[in-house]
Amino acid sequence: MSVTAAGGFTASGIAAGIKQSGDADLALVVNNGPRLEAAGVFTSNRVKAAPVLWSEQVVKGGRISAVILNSGGANACTGPQGFQDTHATAEKTAEVLPGHSAGEVAVASTGLIGELLPMDKLLPGVEKAAEALSEHGGEKAAIAIKTTDTVHKTAVAGGDGWTVGGMAKGAGMLAPGLATMLVVLTTDADVDASALDRALRDATRTTFDRVDSDGCMSTNDTVLLLASGASRVAPEYEEFAEAVRTVCADLARQLIGDAEGASKDIRIEVINAASEDDAVEVGRSIARNNLLKCAIHGEDPNWGRVLSAIGTTSAAFDPDRLNVAINDVWVCKNGSVGEDRTGVDMRFREVRITADLAAGDTEPVVVWANDLTADYVHENSAYSS
Amino acid sequence: MSVTAAGGFTASGIAAGIKQSGDADLALVVNNGPRLEAAGVFTSNRVKAAPVLWSEQVVKGGRISAVILNSGGANACTGPQGFQDTHATAEKTAEVLPGHSAGEVAVASTGLIGELLPMDKLLPGVEKAAEALSEHGGEKAAIAIKTTDTVHKTAVAGGDGWTVGGMAKGAGMLAPGLATMLVVLTTDADVDASALDRALRDATRTTFDRVDSDGCMSTNDTVLLLASGASRVAPEYEEFAEAVRTVCADLARQLIGDAEGASKDIRIEVINAASEDDAVEVGRSIARNNLLKCAIHGEDPNWGRVLSAIGTTSAAFDPDRLNVAINDVWVCKNGSVGEDRTGVDMRFREVRITADLAAGDTEPVVVWANDLTADYVHENSAYSS
Repeated sequence: MSVTAAGGFTASGIAAGIKQSGDADLALVVNNGPRLEAAGVFTSNRVKAAPVLWSEQVVKGGRISAVILNSGGANACTGPQGFQDTHATAEKTAEVLPGHSAGEVAVASTGLIGELLPMDKLLPGVEKAAEALSEHGGEKAAIAIKTTDTVHKTAVAGGDGWTVGGMAKGAGMLAPGLATMLVVLTTDADVDASALDRALRDATRTTFDRVDSDGCMSTNDTVLLLASGASRVAPEYEEFAEAVRTVCADLARQLIGDAEGASKDIRIEVINAASEDDAVEVGRSIARNNLLKCAIHGEDPNWGRVLSAIGTTSAAFDPDRLNVAINDVWVCKNGSVGEDRTGVDMRFREVRITADLAAGDTEPVVVWANDLTADYVHENSAYSS
Repeated sequence: MSVTAAGGFTASGIAAGIKQSGDADLALVVNNGPRLEAAGVFTSNRVKAAPVLWSEQVVKGGRISAVILNSGGANACTGPQGFQDTHATAEKTAEVLPGHSAGEVAVASTGLIGELLPMDKLLPGVEKAAEALSEHGGEKAAIAIKTTDTVHKTAVAGGDGWTVGGMAKGAGMLAPGLATMLVVLTTDADVDASALDRALRDATRTTFDRVDSDGCMSTNDTVLLLASGASRVAPEYEEFAEAVRTVCADLARQLIGDAEGASKDIRIEVINAASEDDAVEVGRSIARNNLLKCAIHGEDPNWGRVLSAIGTTSAAFDPDRLNVAINDVWVCKNGSVGEDRTGVDMRFREVRITADLAAGDTEPVVVWANDLTADYVHENSAYSS
């Protein structure tokens, strides 16, 4: 599992002392080749953390030899000093890994915005992380990138003789473009950077980008895909892309399942839209409706709030033809009262909302969200204080 | 105060039995002339309640002789029967008011979506409301339109010999375009329908439209402005428009102050934007950020979440030039750490966030929001069950 499931990679996770709790807070993933192909997708927030600005430049070359990731501090909104700290972290990583150069070391950070990282702890930690590198270090790396995550997240898929594995962290600020989410995927398939880029963008578009836990977008989101070519197998593009998509979908589902303070995972499926854009817009509008998210928390099949959310979009639909099902009971038919809402069983964690726009024949689009709970409020009221 | 502050109007508020609690739930406002000029602004939600569809047609003629408003049921997503019920309510109102015709009777409803109104109670209630009409009935009307409001809301302004008064209800689903909000404004000034329309649109654009309690938009929002001409005074347009704006701003502030489960009123001022549109987009993005709303609830001056919200907009700005003040302490300067955040006193209900985009010299724009609390979650989890 994790980033060492694929051949050619070593990883580690250690406690550098960045987190006051003493928990693991620094992860290192190293690509030992023979190839160093890489691709990346980053937050679309215009306020980007220093490590995002750095890693965006690194990945432009199509090569990443190592990724150093810290939890316990986002290094966002930290000005020129923050960027220098990221640079120093990459330099230190290259220094302790023979044959590496800083320009091929990606950096990722997660934690509180607006505070400088404790470099006096982080830099010695890099040395310690390099010493701990192992072909079995994937789980430890996945644990070290946790912030408010209650569990670490890993996934694996693959084909004949090759593997795609990965790890993710993220428990809040999950929203399109992307979530406060750090993801490192690795593969031993023999794939070049341009195919990696295509497969990664294709996969994130329908997985991580359709996870909308709380409508908030992070400054630090980073998804990297590294290929070592160690398997010496070059799979067909479609087969490879499907494996990447499977790992991303698996990790995205785990992120929703561990969202801060959530008690429900809401699967919103939009059917019969006139276009995919319409379907995504409607899905997100439903996903972000606080009143609906509260109702779902209360196990209340309040379909009026679904219609109210659909009504705020610019998607093609006729209000008198909308249908809504909650857990497969069509509680709203033709924009009005449908089947008896008392028949909706909402006791389970997963809740399915189906919105039928009756406006076209676009393939169904699925967006995932969470309910809104007092625990979410509590966790996010107290985070930095 | 309220809708009977201006001459020429009578009003009443009674219990028709629509609410199971037995509380007042039906209000009637009658314009006794000599003029019956009127204007209206309605929800921009494309899923519109039956009374909105009806009243939009009524106001197109520029005349309203009476407004009948019920709480206890929104009559939204109720299909053809819902529209027939609205029509019957207008007919009944015209029938019990000598000389009125249904085509000049506006109807407004608020409450749960997706349920038919109990017409067997509502129609006899109309008769009772007509019998209770009084020149001093404004307060009772304001009380009868409450839903989850903890207080009724009224305001008044005016000039030499003329008055603008009004009432509002709304405590949740407050968001641009407009809120779940019913507002009736009355004036005895001698103003024609086209000037009323202009003044009302101008006022709502910068008041009710910039109130964003929870990002949710209702199916029922209705703001009506009726002129009786009873004062025989025809004020200058600018003076009249200013009075309408004052009453709307006063009522909007009261709505925020009574938002469901809120513990803080957040005044977001966007300064030095390149355009008014940019300023409004940034203000709304901050207003809707759940993580920030939680932080404010926790009295945590978490400016990183303000920057994170600004970063999701398309407004013109340079991330390295952004400045943010919370309660006048500039905690973020040039996109990075500014003055000591421990100096921010957040004990009071009103919290002021100032976002300086450093991108132009547009006049400041103010958007109001509320914090996100466990009480909000509780109130909206339990609403329909």
